[in-house]
Amino acid sequence: MFGKHPSALRKPSKELLAALSKNLRAAREAQRLSQEALAERSDLHRTYVGSVERGERNVSLSTLETLAVALGVEPADLLQKGGGHARA
Amino acid sequence: MFGKHPSALRKPSKELLAALSKNLRAAREAQRLSQEALAERSDLHRTYVGSVERGERNVSLSTLETLAVALGVEPADLLQKGGGHARA
Repeated sequence: MFGKHPSALRKPSKELLAALSKNLRAAREAQRLSQEALAERSDLHRTYVGSVERGERNVSLSTLETLAVALGVEPADLLQKGGGHARA
Repeated sequence: MFGKHPSALRKPSKELLAALSKNLRAAREAQRLSQEALAERSDLHRTYVGSVERGERNVSLSTLETLAVALGVEPADLLQKGGGHARA
Protein backbone atom coordinates (compact mmCIF):
# COMPACT_ATOMS: atom_id res chain seq x y z
CA MET A 1 0.00 0.00 0.00
CA PHE A 2 2.20 2.79 -1.26
CA GLY A 3 1.30 5.95 -3.13
CA LYS A 4 0.24 7.72 0.04
CA HIS A 5 -0.64 11.38 0.02
CA PRO A 6 2.15 13.48 1.50
CA SER A 7 0.96 14.81 4.81
CA ALA A 8 1.84 18.32 3.66
CA LEU A 9 -1.14 18.19 1.31
CA ARG A 10 -3.63 17.42 4.05
CA LYS A 11 -5.40 20.06 6.04
CA PRO A 12 -6.51 19.90 9.63
CA SER A 13 -10.29 19.72 10.12
CA LYS A 14 -12.22 22.96 10.46
CA GLU A 15 -13.14 21.82 13.96
CA LEU A 16 -9.53 21.48 15.05
CA LEU A 17 -8.50 24.74 13.41
CA ALA A 18 -11.40 26.49 15.13
CA ALA A 19 -10.32 25.07 18.50
CA LEU A 20 -6.74 26.23 17.97
CA SER A 21 -7.95 29.65 16.89
CA LYS A 22 -10.21 30.07 19.90
CA ASN A 23 -7.68 28.76 22.43
CA LEU A 24 -4.85 30.81 21.02
CA ARG A 25 -6.84 34.01 21.14
CA ALA A 26 -8.13 33.26 24.63
CA ALA A 27 -4.63 32.54 25.96
CA ARG A 28 -3.21 35.63 24.25
CA GLU A 29 -5.94 37.87 25.63
CA ALA A 30 -5.55 36.33 29.08
CA GLN A 31 -1.92 37.51 28.93
CA ARG A 32 -3.07 40.90 27.62
CA LEU A 33 -0.80 40.54 24.63
CA SER A 34 -1.40 41.94 21.16
CA GLN A 35 -0.74 39.64 18.20
CA GLU A 36 2.34 41.73 17.56
CA ALA A 37 3.61 41.31 21.12
CA LEU A 38 3.03 37.55 20.91
CA ALA A 39 4.91 37.49 17.63
CA GLU A 40 7.88 39.25 19.18
CA ARG A 41 7.82 36.99 22.20
CA SER A 42 7.68 33.84 20.07
CA ASP A 43 10.09 35.03 17.39
CA LEU A 44 7.50 34.49 14.68
CA HIS A 45 6.28 37.03 12.16
CA ARG A 46 3.29 39.14 13.13
CA THR A 47 1.34 38.22 10.00
CA TYR A 48 2.07 34.55 10.58
CA VAL A 49 0.76 34.69 14.14
CA GLY A 50 -2.35 36.41 12.79
CA SER A 51 -2.92 33.67 10.22
CA VAL A 52 -2.49 30.93 12.84
CA GLU A 53 -4.98 32.71 15.07
CA ARG A 54 -7.44 32.87 12.18
CA GLY A 55 -7.14 29.09 11.79
CA GLU A 56 -5.49 29.33 8.40
CA ARG A 57 -2.31 27.35 9.10
CA ASN A 58 -1.40 23.72 9.32
CA VAL A 59 1.15 24.48 12.03
CA SER A 60 4.00 22.18 12.93
CA LEU A 61 4.43 20.76 16.39
CA SER A 62 7.39 23.08 16.96
CA THR A 63 5.36 26.18 16.09
CA LEU A 64 2.52 25.02 18.32
CA GLU A 65 5.00 24.57 21.16
CA THR A 66 6.69 27.92 20.53
CA LEU A 67 3.34 29.69 20.81
CA ALA A 68 2.35 27.68 23.88
CA VAL A 69 5.63 28.50 25.65
CA ALA A 70 5.23 32.19 24.81
CA LEU A 71 1.74 32.10 26.33
CA GLY A 72 2.59 30.01 29.37
CA VAL A 73 0.27 27.15 28.45
CA GLU A 74 0.80 23.57 27.33
CA PRO A 75 0.77 22.67 23.62
CA ALA A 76 -2.09 20.24 24.32
CA ASP A 77 -4.11 23.09 25.83
CA LEU A 78 -4.11 24.93 22.51
CA LEU A 79 -5.81 21.96 20.81
CA GLN A 80 -8.52 21.31 23.41
CA LYS A 81 -11.94 21.44 21.87
CA GLY A 82 -14.56 23.42 23.77
CA GLY A 83 -11.93 25.85 25.03
CA GLY A 84 -10.07 23.65 27.51
CA HIS A 85 -7.44 25.00 29.85
CA ALA A 86 -6.52 27.87 27.56
CA ARG A 87 -9.85 29.59 28.10
CA ALA A 88 -9.39 33.05 29.61
CA MET B 1 11.80 42.87 14.11
CA PHE B 2 12.13 40.85 10.95
CA GLY B 3 14.61 38.17 9.98
CA LYS B 4 12.78 35.51 11.93
CA HIS B 5 13.80 31.89 11.73
CA PRO B 6 11.39 29.90 9.56
CA SER B 7 9.42 27.61 11.84
CA ALA B 8 10.46 24.66 9.68
CA LEU B 9 13.96 24.95 11.14
CA ARG B 10 12.81 24.65 14.72
CA LYS B 11 12.41 21.38 16.49
CA PRO B 12 9.93 20.49 19.18
CA SER B 13 11.44 20.00 22.65
CA LYS B 14 12.60 16.54 23.63
CA GLU B 15 9.98 16.62 26.35
CA LEU B 16 7.14 17.19 23.89
CA LEU B 17 8.44 14.62 21.43
CA ALA B 18 8.74 12.10 24.27
CA ALA B 19 5.13 12.77 25.29
CA LEU B 20 3.89 12.31 21.72
CA SER B 21 5.93 9.13 21.40
CA LYS B 22 4.60 7.65 24.61
CA ASN B 23 0.98 8.65 24.01
CA LEU B 24 0.99 7.44 20.43
CA ARG B 25 2.37 4.06 21.37
CA ALA B 26 -0.02 3.70 24.31
CA ALA B 27 -3.04 4.58 22.16
CA ARG B 28 -1.90 2.25 19.38
CA GLU B 29 -1.33 -0.64 21.78
CA ALA B 30 -4.68 0.03 23.47
CA GLN B 31 -6.24 -0.53 20.04
CA ARG B 32 -4.07 -3.63 19.54
CA LEU B 33 -2.75 -2.21 16.30
CA SER B 34 0.68 -2.77 14.81
CA GLN B 35 2.52 0.26 13.43
CA GLU B 36 1.78 -1.15 10.00
CA ALA B 37 -1.94 -1.44 10.72
CA LEU B 38 -2.00 2.13 12.05
CA ALA B 39 -0.19 3.27 8.93
CA GLU B 40 -2.79 1.62 6.69
CA ARG B 41 -5.63 3.03 8.74
CA SER B 42 -4.21 6.57 8.66
CA ASP B 43 -3.03 6.44 5.04
CA LEU B 44 0.53 7.24 6.09
CA HIS B 45 3.64 5.26 5.28
CA ARG B 46 4.68 2.58 7.74
CA THR B 47 8.19 3.95 8.14
CA TYR B 48 6.80 7.45 8.71
CA VAL B 49 4.49 6.23 11.48
CA GLY B 50 7.48 4.48 13.04
CA SER B 51 9.54 7.66 12.99
CA VAL B 52 6.71 9.69 14.54
CA GLU B 53 6.38 7.08 17.27
CA ARG B 54 10.11 7.30 17.93
CA GLY B 55 9.76 11.06 18.44
CA GLU B 56 11.78 11.91 15.37
CA ARG B 57 9.27 14.08 13.53
CA ASN B 58 8.11 17.64 13.75
CA VAL B 59 4.62 16.59 12.68
CA SER B 60 2.07 18.97 11.27
CA LEU B 61 -1.28 19.55 12.90
CA SER B 62 -2.96 17.60 10.08
CA THR B 63 -0.74 14.55 10.62
CA LEU B 64 -1.33 14.70 14.37
CA GLU B 65 -5.08 14.79 13.72
CA THR B 66 -4.94 11.97 11.17
CA LEU B 67 -3.20 9.73 13.69
CA ALA B 68 -5.57 10.75 16.48
CA VAL B 69 -8.63 9.99 14.34
CA ALA B 70 -7.20 6.61 13.37
CA LEU B 71 -6.69 5.83 17.06
CA GLY B 72 -10.01 7.18 18.31
CA VAL B 73 -8.43 9.82 20.54
CA GLU B 74 -8.27 13.61 20.45
CA PRO B 75 -5.25 15.39 18.94
CA ALA B 76 -4.71 17.14 22.28
CA ASP B 77 -4.53 13.74 24.02
CA LEU B 78 -1.48 12.81 21.98
CA LEU B 79 0.40 15.84 23.34
CA GLN B 80 -0.49 15.42 27.03
CA LYS B 81 2.60 15.19 29.17
CA GLY B 82 2.62 12.44 31.75
CA GLY B 83 0.53 10.20 29.53
CA GLY B 84 -2.84 11.95 29.77
CA HIS B 85 -5.99 10.49 28.27
CA ALA B 86 -4.13 8.45 25.68
CA ARG B 87 -2.60 6.17 28.29
CA ALA B 88 -3.62 2.56 27.76
